[in-house]
Amino acid sequence: MHKYLAELIGTFWLVFGGCGSAILAAAFPELGIGFTGVALAFGLTVLTGAYALGHISGGHFNPAVSVGLWFGGRFDAKDLIPYIISQLIGATLAALVLYLIVQGQAGFTGTGGFASNGFGDLSPGKYSMTSALIIEVVLTAFFLIIILGSTDKRAPAGFAPIAIGLALTLIHLISIPVTNTSVNPARSTGVAFFADTAALSQLWLFWVAPIFGAMIGALIYRMLAPQPD
Amino acid sequence: MHKYLAELIGTFWLVFGGCGSAILAAAFPELGIGFTGVALAFGLTVLTGAYALGHISGGHFNPAVSVGLWFGGRFDAKDLIPYIISQLIGATLAALVLYLIVQGQAGFTGTGGFASNGFGDLSPGKYSMTSALIIEVVLTAFFLIIILGSTDKRAPAGFAPIAIGLALTLIHLISIPVTNTSVNPARSTGVAFFADTAALSQLWLFWVAPIFGAMIGALIYRMLAPQPD
Amino acid sequence: MHKYLAELIGTFWLVFGGCGSAILAAAFPELGIGFTGVALAFGLTVLTGAYALGHISGGHFNPAVSVGLWFGGRFDAKDLIPYIISQLIGATLAALVLYLIVQGQAGFTGTGGFASNGFGDLSPGKYSMTSALIIEVVLTAFFLIIILGSTDKRAPAGFAPIAIGLALTLIHLISIPVTNTSVNPARSTGVAFFADTAALSQLWLFWVAPIFGAMIGALIYRMLAPQPD
Amino acid sequence: MHKYLAELIGTFWLVFGGCGSAILAAAFPELGIGFTGVALAFGLTVLTGAYALGHISGGHFNPAVSVGLWFGGRFDAKDLIPYIISQLIGATLAALVLYLIVQGQAGFTGTGGFASNGFGDLSPGKYSMTSALIIEVVLTAFFLIIILGSTDKRAPAGFAPIAIGLALTLIHLISIPVTNTSVNPARSTGVAFFADTAALSQLWLFWVAPIFGAMIGALIYRMLAPQPD
Repeated sequence: MHKYLAELIGTFWLVFGGCGSAILAAAFPELGIGFTGVALAFGLTVLTGAYALGHISGGHFNPAVSVGLWFGGRFDAKDLIPYIISQLIGATLAALVLYLIVQGQAGFTGTGGFASNGFGDLSPGKYSMTSALIIEVVLTAFFLIIILGSTDKRAPAGFAPIAIGLALTLIHLISIPVTNTSVNPARSTGVAFFADTAALSQLWLFWVAPIFGAMIGALIYRMLAPQPD
Repeated sequence: MHKYLAELIGTFWLVFGGCGSAILAAAFPELGIGFTGVALAFGLTVLTGAYALGHISGGHFNPAVSVGLWFGGRFDAKDLIPYIISQLIGATLAALVLYLIVQGQAGFTGTGGFASNGFGDLSPGKYSMTSALIIEVVLTAFFLIIILGSTDKRAPAGFAPIAIGLALTLIHLISIPVTNTSVNPARSTGVAFFADTAALSQLWLFWVAPIFGAMIGALIYRMLAPQPD
Repeated sequence: MHKYLAELIGTFWLVFGGCGSAILAAAFPELGIGFTGVALAFGLTVLTGAYALGHISGGHFNPAVSVGLWFGGRFDAKDLIPYIISQLIGATLAALVLYLIVQGQAGFTGTGGFASNGFGDLSPGKYSMTSALIIEVVLTAFFLIIILGSTDKRAPAGFAPIAIGLALTLIHLISIPVTNTSVNPARSTGVAFFADTAALSQLWLFWVAPIFGAMIGALIYRMLAPQPD
Repeated sequence: MHKYLAELIGTFWLVFGGCGSAILAAAFPELGIGFTGVALAFGLTVLTGAYALGHISGGHFNPAVSVGLWFGGRFDAKDLIPYIISQLIGATLAALVLYLIVQGQAGFTGTGGFASNGFGDLSPGKYSMTSALIIEVVLTAFFLIIILGSTDKRAPAGFAPIAIGLALTLIHLISIPVTNTSVNPARSTGVAFFADTAALSQLWLFWVAPIFGAMIGALIYRMLAPQPD
């Protein structure tokens, strides 16, 4: 049970910190943190969460990561469903708490996109569904390559949370304009419930593409670096 | 005595660096560092202070952290009061030195908010007292989870100052618009003495919420990761 | 073969992440990441790629680095050509995928510079060919000094990907206005194929200067720190 | 001789990277890196230089650091003068190369402040000489506390270049508006030769204050953490 709770808490932190910084601070007049600050925030949720909770649950905080690690031979199939459920609960609770906070702002009139993911009209830069599919697949594949590679026994020990957290920062630096960056179906789902937009109708893409990308990334890493038995 | 002095000096650095960057550099025309730079500065005061002084005092620099560590079974009750007094002295001295520097600017007319914390009219984004309470409790709880987790014997050794410092950066990336970010009663108290606003009248919240949040965080971590005896 | 594929994948990541952030996110209205975000992105491609793939291929991702390491006595001559070919394929594939994504933006009318490198009229700040030559030579020389120094057996183990990745961030913080920053002939070549500008006509400089600089850097490091035999 | 050359090269890198980013990239229209990017650049010169060259010379790159380390009992008096001379040569050569690059920009009309340090009319935010003295003394004192503390045998091994480099980033985040940030007499001297302003006439302060601050920092650290014999 400890590990499921750790995944719930870690995914809460990912959504509260990443989406929270986007909702509360990105577009603050003149001093706002912009996409760079949001990218940094997402990455630091994983860097800090992995150092704090990694020794309990492995620090996935993301259904695509859990699937990819299972596909890469590093995670037991029997934990897959409880992990994903814990991640979804954590993500949704975080979105709920953010919603409570946002309601307390003077002049609050609605949640807008609420940091949800989207394509077409719901893409920040109006990119097509095809562009969204490509970039989410490619970025989640690389996310898994970095996770599998930096936690490989042949990589330097202890540094993986830095590599993985900053990989998520990098992923956001590239792709916020295209899809608002998912690579994480739990993160996409949690905030979609609270968005004033049609985010829920596009949610399928942010399950399909990250999970497909994660499986490709795991395959590539297994091919690149066969495990010594 | 060495450890009390280390806490005084480390908390001076936290306030001088974090609040100093906010007061001196955040809103500089065109080239200013904005909330992203202030968030980075706060985090780096703790990252650098913990590597430099952590082996002397543990590197708390924050009454809520000292209370949370005591609650989490990692800090001796008899040191609690001297640590908090040292932190308050360090924070207030830092604010005083910042005040002397600020007075030397051509056209100086007052300190304004002086990087103090607040809610309602004193919140940068005009968030309510309820929003302020929620976010300060949640963020300090996670701060303690990260501190307890990353310094756990089962986490990789040596990386805790990176995780803890960058957690404080992340906390600021999220919450400067809501309360100007406290999670640290000493930091809030030191600058409140010098603000031209009614910051002192709201100071109670920045003692109550961070300390309450720190205790919750410590409870959660103890539940997640019972110590092997 | 594993190591050649790792170089292909790592160089894909460098171009996809670094040039991708520049093309997709740098100039996004109001919230864009600017040169600071692009500099961070380039550095993080190498930091993450080196932790993930360094134990497979050494993590060069750059023909000038491969030449410099060979010149510095750390890389076998027989691998030089296959490494450079792998890097070129990876860089070009990344540019192709970026091109597919960019075409999906509503109102797409052309690739513009497509994050290619240039001098004179193609320099972001209109710097001369001489300025471009000097800065690319100096920066690649220092890049090699940092690579050779931080991977030296006498340097702390495990930290080299941080030093090398953040060196690339620093290099971009300095020189994007001058040449759009190359220090990497594969990165320059991959995107030049897709630029609407005359980038290909200036590509020679971004082979000559980085490779010459890398050789100088390797010579300097060998002089500074003769290897104990 | 190797160590003197390493100091020359490392100080070249500090000035070329830190002052170079300020001169070339800080105020680039719309996409410029601002004070945050410059602060990051200065810190990364030291982080990268210390990982690359620290095992050769100790990685001072700053006369105030050399004096502070001598005062703190960590550096031999007989090397003090050769180190400082090497640092001055490196800083001046870097400024010269920057000058050559800047001259190649279309429409070049002069160097302006050339990233030099100053107070009063030459302070970016027009701060007085007293403000400049206070902030340079305080920041250099903390710089030395962090250097001495993070390289102490009781601190985690290998992390000092991260702590020290990011301390320099933090120092710049706070104080660029006041003095353009020195804490390093060699950095101040190198660029002052090329400035179109009266920077040379104020150079004395950027020798006196950093060296005095470094000695205070060394005294504080010796008092806080007496060395075990």
